[in-house]
Amino acid sequence: MITVNTKVRSEAVDITSEVEQIVRKAGVTEGICCLFVPHTTAGIFINEHDDPSVVKDVMEALDRMVPRQGPYKHAEGNSDAHIKSIMVGSSVHVPIQGGWMNLGRWQGIFLAEFDGPRTRNVQIIVRKA
Amino acid sequence: MITVNTKVRSEAVDITSEVEQIVRKAGVTEGICCLFVPHTTAGIFINEHDDPSVVKDVMEALDRMVPRQGPYKHAEGNSDAHIKSIMVGSSVHVPIQGGWMNLGRWQGIFLAEFDGPRTRNVQIIVRKA
Amino acid sequence: MITVNTKVRSEAVDITSEVEQIVRKAGVTEGICCLFVPHTTAGIFINEHDDPSVVKDVMEALDRMVPRQGPYKHAEGNSDAHIKSIMVGSSVHVPIQGGWMNLGRWQGIFLAEFDGPRTRNVQIIVRKA
Repeated sequence: MITVNTKVRSEAVDITSEVEQIVRKAGVTEGICCLFVPHTTAGIFINEHDDPSVVKDVMEALDRMVPRQGPYKHAEGNSDAHIKSIMVGSSVHVPIQGGWMNLGRWQGIFLAEFDGPRTRNVQIIVRKA
Repeated sequence: MITVNTKVRSEAVDITSEVEQIVRKAGVTEGICCLFVPHTTAGIFINEHDDPSVVKDVMEALDRMVPRQGPYKHAEGNSDAHIKSIMVGSSVHVPIQGGWMNLGRWQGIFLAEFDGPRTRNVQIIVRKA
Repeated sequence: MITVNTKVRSEAVDITSEVEQIVRKAGVTEGICCLFVPHTTAGIFINEHDDPSVVKDVMEALDRMVPRQGPYKHAEGNSDAHIKSIMVGSSVHVPIQGGWMNLGRWQGIFLAEFDGPRTRNVQIIVRKA
């Protein structure tokens, strides 16, 4: 499990190197790594981690599509965070080959915080093919 | 397999307890539960099932992002349902630990109906880690 | 692995028959097929492949939700493609039963190109239940 302490209401935190360490330790040569977020106002996604402005654009575009001020029924004022979490998803999967995650050249794994700052967990299951 | 008879055009149906029963019967201690929806105008997602207003906000926000009246080419009048299904996704995965689904404190599993009322199926595959 | 040469900036390419061939050759009777896209401006989704106008409606609706001209920070002019890829997702999963993918009556598997034309790869992992 990876624990992430987010610092602001909305941010995408690169957890690629933490995941890679866990996959390496698992000692699985060929398989799949499944990552699961047990939260309802945070999600997980895979995208470019070379230029940090990409995920900033992503988070801002989600803000424009799902405004914080809705008309919303849920009384906690974070309905936008629930909606964005569903759009992004609660799990990702990465193939493992030769003992390493087989991510593409530009891909990184991000925890997407939509209602921070909070302490978030990511569950990791590494399985043989 | 779980069968759900939806009652209106658009609704999120909580199937968490049905899934939990199937996982318990499967007798897998450590593993993953994969849920798959074999439909093109319904999806599946994980989010809060404590306050039912959360998923109502989700469905209404999707309606605002993807209006039923598009400009759409598909002649059946349900293009919005296809689009929303893709945004939500056709499968979810939940880790299993100690024989139970390891969902977060607030998480439930929802079939997302976007073109009901219809009879919908959810395929379930429970696998050892 | 499946290789797809996309032809325009934005298109959904039906790869169902290519995936089916690989699943058949794998000789797995009961299991799951995991498909993963190692790119950050392309995604993968499952939806109707009977009427080709459905996926055209999908791609155009994504264009309306995520305009190519944003206010974006990323300098390459393809932030919309990164955002759409996250909305659609980087992987899909299909149950295998009796040696065949257990897709629904109308479902097909599509590579979603958002920044083509490019050469794209789809990784395939077929696993026993």
